[in-house]
Amino acid sequence: MRLETNLQFVVEQLHARYVHALDADRLEDWPLFFTENGTYRITTAENEARGLPLPVLYAQGRPMLRDRVASLRHANIYEPQRYRHMVSAVIVERLDEATAKSVSNFLVIRIMENGETLLFASGRYLDRIALAPEPRYEERVAICDSRRFDTLLAIPL
Amino acid sequence: MRLETNLQFVVEQLHARYVHALDADRLEDWPLFFTENGTYRITTAENEARGLPLPVLYAQGRPMLRDRVASLRHANIYEPQRYRHMVSAVIVERLDEATAKSVSNFLVIRIMENGETLLFASGRYLDRIALAPEPRYEERVAICDSRRFDTLLAIPL
Amino acid sequence: MRLETNLQFVVEQLHARYVHALDADRLEDWPLFFTENGTYRITTAENEARGLPLPVLYAQGRPMLRDRVASLRHANIYEPQRYRHMVSAVIVERLDEATAKSVSNFLVIRIMENGETLLFASGRYLDRIALAPEPRYEERVAICDSRRFDTLLAIPL
Repeated sequence: MRLETNLQFVVEQLHARYVHALDADRLEDWPLFFTENGTYRITTAENEARGLPLPVLYAQGRPMLRDRVASLRHANIYEPQRYRHMVSAVIVERLDEATAKSVSNFLVIRIMENGETLLFASGRYLDRIALAPEPRYEERVAICDSRRFDTLLAIPL
Repeated sequence: MRLETNLQFVVEQLHARYVHALDADRLEDWPLFFTENGTYRITTAENEARGLPLPVLYAQGRPMLRDRVASLRHANIYEPQRYRHMVSAVIVERLDEATAKSVSNFLVIRIMENGETLLFASGRYLDRIALAPEPRYEERVAICDSRRFDTLLAIPL
Repeated sequence: MRLETNLQFVVEQLHARYVHALDADRLEDWPLFFTENGTYRITTAENEARGLPLPVLYAQGRPMLRDRVASLRHANIYEPQRYRHMVSAVIVERLDEATAKSVSNFLVIRIMENGETLLFASGRYLDRIALAPEPRYEERVAICDSRRFDTLLAIPL
């Protein structure tokens, strides 16, 4: 039980540091939350339920993740909106000595420059996490509840 | 302290598994989160403050909980909306060897078929939890902040 | 690691009890979450980023915090809106034997008397916490994402 509690703590801290990096607009740190060859995918619950493999966004490995950040920086230079991530209901399961999986709920709020605040996205994170040398995502899938989506997402979820 | 930490962990996991079952539309699993004779009640903060006993919804025992699921399945077959539950600020207190109580905040997001996302409900869960053989709700009360309510709730809160 | 887990637990419980006191309108308990000379500040992310020292609200010491509650009670006697706080992504760091710091995300929902529910505020808490004799805020800063703000905040964040 003690081990499970610690594993829960370790994984929740990873999720927490991840969202604080995004909400503070430290996008350049984002690829470092993944393993060297880690994958990131955004999809919708509808596509996931139908078994459609087409993600809204897909990136594998830190170079691709860095490219993604670079294009976001280029595209969004004049849009100073903010984001706020809430993460909840984190369930963690150990897969083996070195790996865990996690499911959690997320809610992302977008705050426009004029101060308007709106629900931007909600959904589930499905993660496979490498625990050593420090916890990092081997795979992070963000499954969005809504099919409505900005074609140009402002930041990663 | 170690014991309290474990109790907190156990109760938060129960809450987490509960909301994932609902959000994944596994309504048939819902009665299993309650003890055989467990009770579920939805009420409003206004009614609660006035001491009005009339709940928005009341069910006692797994057969009644299963009936509730059956009627929801019947009523909502053509409404494919989704829900996303966020749970926060969980406070747990041990009542005796076998029982704990918990208060927590919830926020439920509803995602309509057209993709529109809205705040559906917010409030507090007040729970009495049987800890063995595995953690289950003896009583779960969802106290909603708003008096506005769908007469036909789409899913349990 | 065990110690860190306990520290996390202790701080999250402080945050949880704080928001339940506010959401239950137990404003008179609010100053007791601070040390005798504790400070509370609300600011905006925009001001914080520009290094502007002007807070939206500032109070130092329990007498000032109590004054704040008194004026809220006076101003809002006819506005029975409710609030619901969600706290997420809590990161805790020990500063020394007696003190910890914490960063966390918050989301506050406001429920009007007619039942309308809306996003009221989102942002980050930055806290310095005295751990003994019991955990209390030496400093709590609520940094709001939006610049739009009620000049007369109904409750503390």
